Amino acid sequence: MSLPKANILLIGSGGVGTIAALNLEAGGLAQVTAVLRSNYEAVASNGFDITSCDHGSLKGWKPTSITNRIPEITTSSPQKYDYIVCTTKVIADSGGPTGEQLIQSAVTPGHTVIVLIQNGLNIEKGYQRLFPQNIVLSGISMIDSHEVVPGVIVHGSADDLVIGAFRNPGLVDVAAEAAAAERFVRIYSAAGKTKCVLVRDVAYSRWRKLIFNACLNSICALTGLDTGRIRLADDAVETLVRPAMAEIRAAATSVGVDLPAGVCDEVIAAYPVTMYLPPSMLEDVWKGNLIEVESIVGEPLRIGRANGVSMPTLSVLYHLLKGVQWRAKEKKGLIEIPAQGTE
Amino acid sequence: MSLPKANILLIGSGGVGTIAALNLEAGGLAQVTAVLRSNYEAVASNGFDITSCDHGSLKGWKPTSITNRIPEITTSSPQKYDYIVCTTKVIADSGGPTGEQLIQSAVTPGHTVIVLIQNGLNIEKGYQRLFPQNIVLSGISMIDSHEVVPGVIVHGSADDLVIGAFRNPGLVDVAAEAAAAERFVRIYSAAGKTKCVLVRDVAYSRWRKLIFNACLNSICALTGLDTGRIRLADDAVETLVRPAMAEIRAAATSVGVDLPAGVCDEVIAAYPVTMYLPPSMLEDVWKGNLIEVESIVGEPLRIGRANGVSMPTLSVLYHLLKGVQWRAKEKKGLIEIPAQGTE
Repeated sequence: MSLPKANILLIGSGGVGTIAALNLEAGGLAQVTAVLRSNYEAVASNGFDITSCDHGSLKGWKPTSITNRIPEITTSSPQKYDYIVCTTKVIADSGGPTGEQLIQSAVTPGHTVIVLIQNGLNIEKGYQRLFPQNIVLSGISMIDSHEVVPGVIVHGSADDLVIGAFRNPGLVDVAAEAAAAERFVRIYSAAGKTKCVLVRDVAYSRWRKLIFNACLNSICALTGLDTGRIRLADDAVETLVRPAMAEIRAAATSVGVDLPAGVCDEVIAAYPVTMYLPPSMLEDVWKGNLIEVESIVGEPLRIGRANGVSMPTLSVLYHLLKGVQWRAKEKKGLIEIPAQGTE
Repeated sequence: MSLPKANILLIGSGGVGTIAALNLEAGGLAQVTAVLRSNYEAVASNGFDITSCDHGSLKGWKPTSITNRIPEITTSSPQKYDYIVCTTKVIADSGGPTGEQLIQSAVTPGHTVIVLIQNGLNIEKGYQRLFPQNIVLSGISMIDSHEVVPGVIVHGSADDLVIGAFRNPGLVDVAAEAAAAERFVRIYSAAGKTKCVLVRDVAYSRWRKLIFNACLNSICALTGLDTGRIRLADDAVETLVRPAMAEIRAAATSVGVDLPAGVCDEVIAAYPVTMYLPPSMLEDVWKGNLIEVESIVGEPLRIGRANGVSMPTLSVLYHLLKGVQWRAKEKKGLIEIPAQGTE
């Protein structure tokens, strides 16, 4: 008799989330319920169309179950979720409910492991406050996967996921945190189609990703340059990208995370120049979407500053991006301004 | 018998230039030949349609003469220009001919007075090098005037022009420089419809305008916020605008120009919040035009740095704007990049 499959709830089934669902089910160790929003109707009718470098071409694929609302799990519910995997963007300043408030009805205290496959710093704090008895895992995903139209996913470069446990100060059993992370990696890797590694040092992977996200991503968003053009555009790398990266490294050092200098070169040259990839924040700016400015730029800046690190480049980038975000919020109707006049 | 009219060549007859032509001819002391480029056909056929707060509504107006090329003045020419007035944007990094190269064929050495109604610092240097015997005047214009379609000018707030002579180190006769400036102000003011003042201290008026142009204008261009929204958007004024302005003030001080602190408040509150005016650089970014990044941001930054002034905010703004400019140049075909590929 086989072990029961892990019961997983996935929040956010776009480019990153759908490939995660696919990986989680492909190995046969999990069943996934995906909570869909903008693409619910499309996927309910036709499933996902996926073109994936890891999984090939899939037409009409669906996870075990889809829903358009967060399930309610009560003590009398017949089921509970072993894992809730969040792959939505972290927009702390959207004015809407927080991620932890959103999933609250589906969390079984002391049981459900929450997996945040999301960028930025301190994103786990709210979950640990609201669910002091639950394990929270960190996921840092390097993946080039996009939902090009609702339900259609194009996954261009191999998935690379780094999993580890956030230390939850409310929990004494560190080994249980590690075991939950280990099990998740086993489930995710079972099909053998993807790279999913377990790390102890969650902070390192999160700060390392910021070398890309807080620096290249934000500078591309403000200039309209992509990963190739930023390297071709005169001295943009030397005058903007490297100074910003040096500030992130210094902020990381201030909390005991040692990012080798070579990481900067690796990140700058991660893609061939002529791929001309618009980073996610630039795409979001083009689309008028809200951006993850607080978790990926604001938080490292606040941490660095609190530790006396000089971060003049990050500071200007952060405040400019806040201006961009403010305008995006206004366009979305989240902010109202006084009517035009001359007074 | 009346004095002969001043013979004036105007380079750039858009929003600012056309109102200048109108002022110069309105008092009867000058005849203007306007050199038109993008709007030549429209104006040749139908003249200018002008809606002006100073001049009312004018339909089909033309200056004394229009042309679509810079005239050639030789020693045997029957005429020479007393003034050449340049109101084009200063795009030092466009890769095209410089302003002084463009007008060279129309300049009579030792006679023609060149008037630069343009923003930024060190814009006179190239003219003084190429025309060491000619007087160069500085014009700083505060005007809200736009060419909304070719030949159609909307002039919304009163013209305010500050004229003075740049000190030309090649000329010994300082009094002649002052007299040329004085005469220009007389011609420009003769109709009594505009405010045109003569100043001795050209540097002050140029640095003062940078409090707007290098700071508010560039921050609005990068964030997409206008003059009203930048004041509504959280702490953008305190975290970006004021720090940038403080750096410009410090750079000005380093060259002996004392801008009182109150100037910053005046500039921030120059327009009612609810006018929501997009500054010129933001409009240019929206339109994909090249921007005056070198003359209004690069030059004050270089001057301040050379004098040991710390300018961290301006530095980031400058390099981001250079990235924006690079992309605009590429879109205009001024820069070629390697074809898309994966190598």
